[in-house]
Amino acid sequence: MKKIAVLTSGGDAPGMNAAIRAVVRKARFHGVEVVGVYHGFEGLYKGNFELLDLGAVGGIIQRGGTKLYSARFPEFKEDEYQLKAIENMREQGIEGLVVIGGDGSYRGAMQLTEKGFPCVGIPGTIDNDIAGTEYTIGFDTALNTVIDAIDKIRDTATSHENTFIVEVMGRAAGDIALWAGLAAGAESVLIPEEEYDLEEIIARLERGAARSKKHSIIIVAEGVMPGHKLAKILEEKTGIQIRVSVLGHIQRGGAPSAQDRVLAGRLGAKAVEVLLEGGSGRAVGIRNHTIVDYGLREAYEGNHKADLSLYTLSKELSI
Amino acid sequence: MKKIAVLTSGGDAPGMNAAIRAVVRKARFHGVEVVGVYHGFEGLYKGNFELLDLGAVGGIIQRGGTKLYSARFPEFKEDEYQLKAIENMREQGIEGLVVIGGDGSYRGAMQLTEKGFPCVGIPGTIDNDIAGTEYTIGFDTALNTVIDAIDKIRDTATSHENTFIVEVMGRAAGDIALWAGLAAGAESVLIPEEEYDLEEIIARLERGAARSKKHSIIIVAEGVMPGHKLAKILEEKTGIQIRVSVLGHIQRGGAPSAQDRVLAGRLGAKAVEVLLEGGSGRAVGIRNHTIVDYGLREAYEGNHKADLSLYTLSKELSI
Amino acid sequence: MKKIAVLTSGGDAPGMNAAIRAVVRKARFHGVEVVGVYHGFEGLYKGNFELLDLGAVGGIIQRGGTKLYSARFPEFKEDEYQLKAIENMREQGIEGLVVIGGDGSYRGAMQLTEKGFPCVGIPGTIDNDIAGTEYTIGFDTALNTVIDAIDKIRDTATSHENTFIVEVMGRAAGDIALWAGLAAGAESVLIPEEEYDLEEIIARLERGAARSKKHSIIIVAEGVMPGHKLAKILEEKTGIQIRVSVLGHIQRGGAPSAQDRVLAGRLGAKAVEVLLEGGSGRAVGIRNHTIVDYGLREAYEGNHKADLSLYTLSKELSI
Amino acid sequence: MKKIAVLTSGGDAPGMNAAIRAVVRKARFHGVEVVGVYHGFEGLYKGNFELLDLGAVGGIIQRGGTKLYSARFPEFKEDEYQLKAIENMREQGIEGLVVIGGDGSYRGAMQLTEKGFPCVGIPGTIDNDIAGTEYTIGFDTALNTVIDAIDKIRDTATSHENTFIVEVMGRAAGDIALWAGLAAGAESVLIPEEEYDLEEIIARLERGAARSKKHSIIIVAEGVMPGHKLAKILEEKTGIQIRVSVLGHIQRGGAPSAQDRVLAGRLGAKAVEVLLEGGSGRAVGIRNHTIVDYGLREAYEGNHKADLSLYTLSKELSI
Repeated sequence: MKKIAVLTSGGDAPGMNAAIRAVVRKARFHGVEVVGVYHGFEGLYKGNFELLDLGAVGGIIQRGGTKLYSARFPEFKEDEYQLKAIENMREQGIEGLVVIGGDGSYRGAMQLTEKGFPCVGIPGTIDNDIAGTEYTIGFDTALNTVIDAIDKIRDTATSHENTFIVEVMGRAAGDIALWAGLAAGAESVLIPEEEYDLEEIIARLERGAARSKKHSIIIVAEGVMPGHKLAKILEEKTGIQIRVSVLGHIQRGGAPSAQDRVLAGRLGAKAVEVLLEGGSGRAVGIRNHTIVDYGLREAYEGNHKADLSLYTLSKELSI
Repeated sequence: MKKIAVLTSGGDAPGMNAAIRAVVRKARFHGVEVVGVYHGFEGLYKGNFELLDLGAVGGIIQRGGTKLYSARFPEFKEDEYQLKAIENMREQGIEGLVVIGGDGSYRGAMQLTEKGFPCVGIPGTIDNDIAGTEYTIGFDTALNTVIDAIDKIRDTATSHENTFIVEVMGRAAGDIALWAGLAAGAESVLIPEEEYDLEEIIARLERGAARSKKHSIIIVAEGVMPGHKLAKILEEKTGIQIRVSVLGHIQRGGAPSAQDRVLAGRLGAKAVEVLLEGGSGRAVGIRNHTIVDYGLREAYEGNHKADLSLYTLSKELSI
Repeated sequence: MKKIAVLTSGGDAPGMNAAIRAVVRKARFHGVEVVGVYHGFEGLYKGNFELLDLGAVGGIIQRGGTKLYSARFPEFKEDEYQLKAIENMREQGIEGLVVIGGDGSYRGAMQLTEKGFPCVGIPGTIDNDIAGTEYTIGFDTALNTVIDAIDKIRDTATSHENTFIVEVMGRAAGDIALWAGLAAGAESVLIPEEEYDLEEIIARLERGAARSKKHSIIIVAEGVMPGHKLAKILEEKTGIQIRVSVLGHIQRGGAPSAQDRVLAGRLGAKAVEVLLEGGSGRAVGIRNHTIVDYGLREAYEGNHKADLSLYTLSKELSI
Repeated sequence: MKKIAVLTSGGDAPGMNAAIRAVVRKARFHGVEVVGVYHGFEGLYKGNFELLDLGAVGGIIQRGGTKLYSARFPEFKEDEYQLKAIENMREQGIEGLVVIGGDGSYRGAMQLTEKGFPCVGIPGTIDNDIAGTEYTIGFDTALNTVIDAIDKIRDTATSHENTFIVEVMGRAAGDIALWAGLAAGAESVLIPEEEYDLEEIIARLERGAARSKKHSIIIVAEGVMPGHKLAKILEEKTGIQIRVSVLGHIQRGGAPSAQDRVLAGRLGAKAVEVLLEGGSGRAVGIRNHTIVDYGLREAYEGNHKADLSLYTLSKELSI
């Protein structure tokens, strides 16, 4: 291979730029050229390409977001769009593609692979919800952003002896809520993977109040229910006034954490290696501290499983 | 004077602890004892007192929230509650009271003063809405928290070329929105002090889009309207999808900024001086870098005026 | 067991407080009382004990340093001091001890174990240099502090096109330098585990300059040589002016990262479990995301091995 | 005027990019073109120019350092270099120049003015040492970086009951030390403007120890003496072991604080106004919250005076 392309797709995640940088530098290390594709699959279809030299990825390792932009492009499900994308790449002499994104992006990559164009996926999403890899790029940063926000909220909660519900991201996967709950010392955590027990949450609130610990933090993943809805339910049952904070989009941004940058560096380099060794339709990931590659289909058809031992521990520590 | 008391009241603000520390240390410097009152005016009424020595205020200068807790206590408007509070203080030999809080707290302090108990107010609120002082303790920290959040949101806005509305605190006073707008380079800012011009906001959105700057940040003070309502209006008029982030309570917490700590130190020390010099019914504040004191009534009856030259500048710089 | 004790020893590390909290809460969950020992082994010898209830560990999960203080106490190597410590604990009805610290602290714990007092060690040190566990509490936070500092230095390095040497902690173990190098995109990294190649470092500097990338960051672990010494060597060889930043003690402090808090929570809980199940002379650690326990002696006699694949990758990415 | 230029010179400071952005946007608001000069006066001499449109200053308001680079260029003191610079600008149709930097940079600007080329200076330096303006761009950010570092050091100092000396920037001006001392609650502060009293510092150390406050932070401006030298002196006199942290270059970097961004916006806009109104040889600054302009010579011949009331207060609060 002489030339490969790289794009970012789906929701942006901190560390995507570090991954782009690693792809470019590892490829250059092997004498391979790298073309950046702007605006994800839409840019692939429209031929929105630019050659990335070492200078083009200078000073981006620490930046949130993605220098290559990201976009939704539902049309890409259709064959003609995919074929056009492949044609565009072949015209430029591009022989392989690295796709950085979530499982929606992996599907697009798999379809290109099936039409004969070698693709490798890098897991870039704050939700940590991709099967086959223990961590995704962006998760650790999002987690630190969440606990930093909860530390701030706790200042107010403690000073006013209030109960707060903090709604965090996570539709199907509760990893952010789960880890943040343990890291921030939340009194209760609600995740999509586990049935919540309203009576237990209420008992916990009342137990705290009884031993004069009058403030309380409850974390709820957006996939369980909106924070405001939970507040209303709890207020009706307990008569306690409850405040709500929806963390929202701040969870996606910010300079990537050390872990995310190192992970991005390792996965970016591995993706290039896989392509150069002839791999196609592969995803890269981390398992037991080792960087691995496996089938893209396994990644988006499989299920990421949250570590529910953290859920149990969280409960034990918030007696 | 041999003994004074200090309490925090109203919404907590970063730097309140630094102010408590300064009150205690300045008083100790003059050989005066300081009693901390827990839970604001409620604690004053209930006699929830504790003698604060130097060790008691060690390691708090950098902490958000308030070590003395804060609480709403509407009953304190009534004479008998105020008289009981004064009785409690006199029983303990307390001869003066420092109240750290917003203008609601100042009213309580003024009523005690009118009943013969010397009080001095220190402006502690993130809203920067107290007349007679250019800055209040907590404003600068809140501002930095807001721009840090907007920087994160901008990462996503840029990567996805989205328009975001960020709702910040400020019911009657637009200082946070105004300063944050300038500091974060927002495209439009809506504050309670100025009529907003929907057509102009829309024109600005469309002008940006026309020169391929497809992302945009609009800041709205909660006192103007909820962010979600503004989003709906703009979406209907422009067809552009708009995301909303309500920053909420994270704005109140966090370690105080350098400015807030220095301001807290200066105002806390001044409050003690005023009491020791026989001042009563006074507020302390900063004007032209000089620490001043003035009538408490002036503080809560007067109007804080936002610096609207920043509003004009903000518009000019967001062409 | 009805009552156990906990202490922190050696250099402080962010997350020690979160570990103390987990020990107390997990023990309380099982109905066991926890005594906090102040000032490490010195406090054990002097009987500097305090019963810790749930309230005593409230609001500390996010604090750097250690609430129980730490101290050097070389005398503790002697039998009589150890016997006195055991006597003190037995007098208070304490039946087991949790020691949070580095390998020096583990030795003390092992000696108490050998004299018949059950001890369990929790790895708390920023250096990540304890055998048998992949991570120690504090390492991730220190790493984030280091890359945050390097990001700041890079602003200046880029603006002035300077070369900087950043000296980081790590006498025998290069983990901080190694990970920070990859995370911060350093041009060269010097660690104690690998012979450095001066010619290569110089070549790298000159290669960057040749392609008009005039700034450069070199990270050196203190165990290799002082940053100022390296600067002098490189200046003599290249004629390039080199600036030095010694990060020093800021690396030990700060609010613990999410990873460190979760790790502290898991290890703290495990330590209590091990004691309650009759374990003695054990260390707890993390391997392949699983919390394990193993012999204390193995921990301080074995060698922690840095992941040198990161070293190779770091070189490839900094072409 | 139809076209102006802007450059940054001297040590970089956070907020320089925000100032560049404001210059460009304010000029564009008035229909004036802006040319960016790279590498300060050296670039002026070499004609290293680039036209900056609105897009060129997008996404830089939050970045530390300077997008236009900075450089030392001692040759610029000579007439021929200055004349060549003016010739270069005239050739490009540039009619005025904005110089962002410290007082060395102001001298260069004044010399160009005297040779007939209109210049305006914007104070950009972390040292806050320019006469005629109460604040310089970068000071507030540096201050926050310093107190954040000291907060981290205090975690360790408290845990180990150590005394720390923290050396901060400031050769002739002690503003950073002075403000940081108050904001971080340092026990002693040494600034170039005031004779230090060794006996008092020692007394303070010993007084703290006597009331069992065994940790202590001493801040010294580099202009007084190196931190390591002070440590040696104090160790000899007291026998107390003292640790030293030299904060160094991290003080120059990082995302600018809200205050610095607002100040940069206001000063950048004012500089353009002054040029457009025919001003020449002027500096812009802030006095009593009002943006002013005054003679460049006044700026670099006058003396910035630190607010020594903070010094007195700092002592009173650190009893």
